[in-house]
Amino acid sequence: MKFVRTILIIGGGAAGLSAALNARKTDRNADIKLITQESRPAYSRCALPFIISGEIRDFNNILIYPSDFYKRMRIDLKLNMPTTNIDHKSRTATVSGESLQYDLLILATGGYTRKLEVKGIEKKGIYSLRTVEDCSAIMDAAKSSQDVVVVGGGVIAVEVADALRKIGCNVTIMVRSRLLRALLDEDMADIVNRRLTTSGVRLLPKKLPDKFIGNDKVRGVISGGDEVKADLVVLAVGEMPNTELASQVGVELGPTGGIKVNQRMETSVKGVYAAGDCVENTHLITQKPMLSMLGTVAVRQGKVAGVNAAGGDAIYPGGLNSTISRIFDLEVGSSGLTEWEAKSEGIDCISGAVSWKTRAEYYPGAKDIRVKLVVERESRRIIGGQIIGGENVASKLDMISLAIQSKLTVHNFANAETCYTPPLADTWNPLILAAESVLRRLK
Amino acid sequence: MKFVRTILIIGGGAAGLSAALNARKTDRNADIKLITQESRPAYSRCALPFIISGEIRDFNNILIYPSDFYKRMRIDLKLNMPTTNIDHKSRTATVSGESLQYDLLILATGGYTRKLEVKGIEKKGIYSLRTVEDCSAIMDAAKSSQDVVVVGGGVIAVEVADALRKIGCNVTIMVRSRLLRALLDEDMADIVNRRLTTSGVRLLPKKLPDKFIGNDKVRGVISGGDEVKADLVVLAVGEMPNTELASQVGVELGPTGGIKVNQRMETSVKGVYAAGDCVENTHLITQKPMLSMLGTVAVRQGKVAGVNAAGGDAIYPGGLNSTISRIFDLEVGSSGLTEWEAKSEGIDCISGAVSWKTRAEYYPGAKDIRVKLVVERESRRIIGGQIIGGENVASKLDMISLAIQSKLTVHNFANAETCYTPPLADTWNPLILAAESVLRRLK
Repeated sequence: MKFVRTILIIGGGAAGLSAALNARKTDRNADIKLITQESRPAYSRCALPFIISGEIRDFNNILIYPSDFYKRMRIDLKLNMPTTNIDHKSRTATVSGESLQYDLLILATGGYTRKLEVKGIEKKGIYSLRTVEDCSAIMDAAKSSQDVVVVGGGVIAVEVADALRKIGCNVTIMVRSRLLRALLDEDMADIVNRRLTTSGVRLLPKKLPDKFIGNDKVRGVISGGDEVKADLVVLAVGEMPNTELASQVGVELGPTGGIKVNQRMETSVKGVYAAGDCVENTHLITQKPMLSMLGTVAVRQGKVAGVNAAGGDAIYPGGLNSTISRIFDLEVGSSGLTEWEAKSEGIDCISGAVSWKTRAEYYPGAKDIRVKLVVERESRRIIGGQIIGGENVASKLDMISLAIQSKLTVHNFANAETCYTPPLADTWNPLILAAESVLRRLK
Repeated sequence: MKFVRTILIIGGGAAGLSAALNARKTDRNADIKLITQESRPAYSRCALPFIISGEIRDFNNILIYPSDFYKRMRIDLKLNMPTTNIDHKSRTATVSGESLQYDLLILATGGYTRKLEVKGIEKKGIYSLRTVEDCSAIMDAAKSSQDVVVVGGGVIAVEVADALRKIGCNVTIMVRSRLLRALLDEDMADIVNRRLTTSGVRLLPKKLPDKFIGNDKVRGVISGGDEVKADLVVLAVGEMPNTELASQVGVELGPTGGIKVNQRMETSVKGVYAAGDCVENTHLITQKPMLSMLGTVAVRQGKVAGVNAAGGDAIYPGGLNSTISRIFDLEVGSSGLTEWEAKSEGIDCISGAVSWKTRAEYYPGAKDIRVKLVVERESRRIIGGQIIGGENVASKLDMISLAIQSKLTVHNFANAETCYTPPLADTWNPLILAAESVLRRLK
């Protein structure tokens, strides 16, 4: 008799789906169960702000695959099913009250939004944005709201502010330190600040809500003695790895609070893998643990967990937090360490930046772009890059990520051959010019 | 007394200008003379097709720098001055009949279009496209022309065909073998062929003109017994390195007919450098000599020649012929070897290709893109890439070029972290998917 392994995947988001698909590709016979408490198959969470803005019309559009695709791949997808208990000794999970047997377990339980400990947080009109349901609620509330406060300074905060501004709200962003601190140095972040301000978004840096006021429904936010009017509040802070089931299973957590995994995405417990927002990632440069909370990381980790759980052999080497966001007409990207982060890590580094055009200057429609590179002084290796521009930022950022991962020196990078035709690119790629700017400062 | 070196640069195009600027940056005191027989300072030759199409409105727009910039950089620019003789022993050049002394010589004499040996070639209405004057002449002729034959299959041929079609001409491309043979394998070139055909451009592969007919003015092209109507013919074939002065100086030419140079852009004669379309480039993968005839190569080589002539130290390592072109709404790029070229070179290689979207599939406006990678089987190194897509092709091609130059294996490349946000990029970058397609075929 042939052994058929049962792979149980808890969590039907990007990591869980990627794990299921890649387990199937690796083992044609495995019994693959994908369990989620959500009411829909995996969808793109990163697309939710663009549903609020109206750019994407329907939740059905952002489903990654329709239900019948799961059937075709022989993935046993179970919706609306919370997993309440796992007894790994007997390889049994309790799902919606029923017992499920498994051989291998993949935890892809994602993240959750930690509740802010602020007075008045229970009032109506205060939301987070993680699920389709959250998104619907915010959209409904926005219809009858004028003044919105978005709390947080990350990509989601900025994208939600952009979306709500586009549909006509008065938007204020309240952020503890400053915007996009994990992505951009201050000189680069200033470009984003200016763009938000000229688009009518008010920025309140170094502010956090002390209290939400109003009767039943929120009416304003008190911060440092000032009152900011708000009939809608979106909290885009406190994203945490969801490790409740992991703790039950007894897997080790890391210092960041995420599940500790090795490069095979194995947890400390044999037979248990984990992937996505619930795990702790390793930074490729510092080799330190970090929380990435990125869709791209989730699908890559999910793939590795799925392949390995199904008997294959794959490695996820760690990450650089390569992130891209579109903020009004700016494309904003970052990979590796910012200069500020590198210095905080005690890395002796030097940076160079250049402002250029995305196409030949004389070609109509060429847009501004600014590139900043961060280089470790001794090794001359590129350890970080930031780009803000009117177009083509994502692919340029990917080239910087590749340079960082490949441990290229800034000298190698400056010698790269790039392509040119007036309507699409300039003779000198701004990435190369930024590298040359670093080289001049290294002399 | 301080020694002031005189650097004489013959040729005021991209290579010559880049040499002059970088010589100035390297030596603040040098006497730098930039001699050209053209009537304008350096302009972008690659922009000429987009002037024909009307996308760029004026020749003045494509000047790289205005004349007063040269003054500010203390570059002694001499227009309309043919160099007729160089006696390198006495370090004397004869320019417009006058003697000029120099210490160091940089040949940036560019290319010329070899005359086709075809009956009737002397008729009116038959042009090449190299200079602003050629461009003006073609635009004038196009006003009173209906049927155009473009001879050639390279980037310029296709771009000129696109431009003339856009302004309403009936365009036929006649090409000896097939379109874009140096850039694309047949499977990829077919996409371009189809796009040209649906845009109303007629393709006649495996055809060359046997005879141009008409009285004083061209009326048609005879090829293999067939007659193709033409009241305007553009020849985009026979681009050759201009080495007349080089031969006079006695520098060695290579097997391709271009000036032989080392990585410092030094010719075989001490004190004489060369850069741009007149020199022979070295292919980074095959290490064989080749003619690149690319603006990006010219500026890089010019820079190295200028730095070294001015007493600095720089290296041009060779090239990959990274080329990008926009053909109607397609962006078409190639770097390194095609599969066909690699096989002709006796390289055991394997390829993988993928069709994908430029953004998240569900995001409105996402466009098609196809990526092909060529990998050397034994080393698993990426040796070539071809991309055709609706947007963002240039930066993606640059990433492939970087991978080739950095000698990355397809496995390294498949592990690259790429960035994602629905409006700008998909979770999986198509470059990574093409790499995975190669990996599957390597198993």
